Amino acid sequence: MAKWQPFLSKQTNELKSSEIRDLLKLTEGREVISFAGGLPDPSTFPVEDIKKIIDEVLDTKSSSALQYTATAGVSELRKQLVSFTALRGVTNINENNIFVSVGSQEALFIIFNILVDQGDHVFVEKPTYLTALNVLRVRKPEFHGVPVTEKGPNLHEMESQLKKLKSEGKRVKLMYVIPTAQNPAGTTMYLEERKYLMELASAYDFLIVEDDAYGFLVFDGDSPPSLKALDTEGRVIYLGTFSKILSPGLRLGWVVADEEIIRELELFKQNVDLHTPSLNQFVAAEAIKRGVIQTNLPKTRDLYRRKRDIMIDAINNYFPDAVKRTKPVGGMFVFAWLPEKIDTTKMLQEAMENGVAYVPGSSFFYDYSGRNTMRINYSFPSKSQIERGIEILGNLIKSKL
Amino acid sequence: MAKWQPFLSKQTNELKSSEIRDLLKLTEGREVISFAGGLPDPSTFPVEDIKKIIDEVLDTKSSSALQYTATAGVSELRKQLVSFTALRGVTNINENNIFVSVGSQEALFIIFNILVDQGDHVFVEKPTYLTALNVLRVRKPEFHGVPVTEKGPNLHEMESQLKKLKSEGKRVKLMYVIPTAQNPAGTTMYLEERKYLMELASAYDFLIVEDDAYGFLVFDGDSPPSLKALDTEGRVIYLGTFSKILSPGLRLGWVVADEEIIRELELFKQNVDLHTPSLNQFVAAEAIKRGVIQTNLPKTRDLYRRKRDIMIDAINNYFPDAVKRTKPVGGMFVFAWLPEKIDTTKMLQEAMENGVAYVPGSSFFYDYSGRNTMRINYSFPSKSQIERGIEILGNLIKSKL
Repeated sequence: MAKWQPFLSKQTNELKSSEIRDLLKLTEGREVISFAGGLPDPSTFPVEDIKKIIDEVLDTKSSSALQYTATAGVSELRKQLVSFTALRGVTNINENNIFVSVGSQEALFIIFNILVDQGDHVFVEKPTYLTALNVLRVRKPEFHGVPVTEKGPNLHEMESQLKKLKSEGKRVKLMYVIPTAQNPAGTTMYLEERKYLMELASAYDFLIVEDDAYGFLVFDGDSPPSLKALDTEGRVIYLGTFSKILSPGLRLGWVVADEEIIRELELFKQNVDLHTPSLNQFVAAEAIKRGVIQTNLPKTRDLYRRKRDIMIDAINNYFPDAVKRTKPVGGMFVFAWLPEKIDTTKMLQEAMENGVAYVPGSSFFYDYSGRNTMRINYSFPSKSQIERGIEILGNLIKSKL
Repeated sequence: MAKWQPFLSKQTNELKSSEIRDLLKLTEGREVISFAGGLPDPSTFPVEDIKKIIDEVLDTKSSSALQYTATAGVSELRKQLVSFTALRGVTNINENNIFVSVGSQEALFIIFNILVDQGDHVFVEKPTYLTALNVLRVRKPEFHGVPVTEKGPNLHEMESQLKKLKSEGKRVKLMYVIPTAQNPAGTTMYLEERKYLMELASAYDFLIVEDDAYGFLVFDGDSPPSLKALDTEGRVIYLGTFSKILSPGLRLGWVVADEEIIRELELFKQNVDLHTPSLNQFVAAEAIKRGVIQTNLPKTRDLYRRKRDIMIDAINNYFPDAVKRTKPVGGMFVFAWLPEKIDTTKMLQEAMENGVAYVPGSSFFYDYSGRNTMRINYSFPSKSQIERGIEILGNLIKSKL
């Protein structure tokens, strides 16, 4: 047949593969140093602990661990997540405020589906996590961007925009924000700024979708309490993930929110996949209960701090002075601004031919601005790969000036 | 806050919890004999094999099994599924025709999203799998129903409907069909009927979404080749699942389709959850490779045949003669037609008070007809629960006459 076009739905025809994803696919099976992904260093996976846990779970409760389970999640895990999320300052919640998803990606997908309609006014940071943007784009909201500064998104600018929208009779539905070790900017919102954002949300009556993917991975200074911890009105929908602190291959994320929202998530997820894998949930529950994650975290943070330092040193050595870059306080990425004349999307193919991949920064801007920026990952490549790859990139950038 | 209504999207407000799901939730934690679910008997889970496989996978390839992987699935599993699906007669495919999903539910969700637009003409069997119907309903197609007979959906009636639609200038997009051990009817399409359906699909140029959930669970007579095996034009999108033959808690399903469709599924899934859990995929790949599933299947079929016989005997003993029922050739369910005056949805609460749950049959009809029908599961309850539960149900039905 091969004539599928007439059979595809409208949204399918809108959902076209990004040129970047297609380009990055070319790295598969090739000798390319990849700064593109957001992969944890596999040496951080607590393999022996996971093995032991699975053995015991299958010995003692295989008939639940291998069976269908509840859509909102296995009760044992939801209970453990109540105490685990308390480590991010979130209290006064119970099991019914917890929802387990197939990675926090699924939580983003469901949340934006249950909340956002075409034309809704939605705030995002500039830049922000590209896959969240991709999900949001399908919902066709009207985007409003807030530039990220060292102390977090520029809330004064946001307040002006909010005022203007209000004066035009337009209602803002939500802000999607990564307050801690922001992806891709690597910055963390100051505590006073967090309080200021909560005041804005209350004054202008909008919701906050807080993506706390890196909340446990801050290695310089403190990790301030999450926005959810400051939420007295039930406005914050909090997203956590096991991908960066246990294993991404288990595909486990969680949501903390008002019980009413949890019920809506549940109803939607029933259609998507019935429930998150049971065995995986028991593994995560035990990994919290036995302190496996808590014990592992300081080592992971140390490793990523060292890798970040190696990358920063290499950038200082090999990139021309005209390049500006962040010094992330946590997370997995350095973000860089190249001279305006360089288009990092156009440069990617050449970089890959030279043996290095990165993500062009424009993907992280809802309006595809930032065409001279790039995101560079340091958590996955080895130390020697970081040094070699940054040298190659530096030479390429220099050749463009 | 607690005033969520203004924040919800349009589709959320349409996606209301079914009264049946709410009723069945009441069984949780209570002493109710449940004929409602579609749960495998946990004694069929090959626990020791799974334990051994996981140990070895974590010993030898933890850095891939616990890491992010490709959206379409782990290559090892996709390769194994090429040979495994050959057991259902499907040949001339390769790894690129395979897509791995979080249970076949996710495959249904993505397929109907990428294919169906509001107002599209879609054929379904009457009755058919309720959760597939739920996903379809959100897409708002125009439904056309084909009654299920002992030899499969009534294709003569379908052909008349197709002719009429064509004469009105209306194009049919797809048929969703469960040809083997149909859920809930328990019937299997004859081979000649399968060929006839393929001819109709070709003549009227529509797609077939074939749900083969029970293709490996036919215990009376043969399991005829799947529709995909008869597909010479790439019209059939085949869905398989590990839920009934290995473990539902692993949440693994797969799709076999034209490579172009696989790419669209991949693109959509990227937004939904990035990928299906890696470790789980390695488990399934090894379970096929080592013959665990193939060895286990005859025992599972034997067990379900025996349980079916116990249920049929109990129905013959305890249900009044006015009740008609199927004698399923495979799968997990008996479907029953009660006298017209009994509304099984209304009767459910009373049944549960008496200690028995089932699924009212109207959920399996796109037009909510069949209000006097019920689906009764025999795979999960114990033999004594089957006997006791059917006796209770029989008495309740008799009291209504």
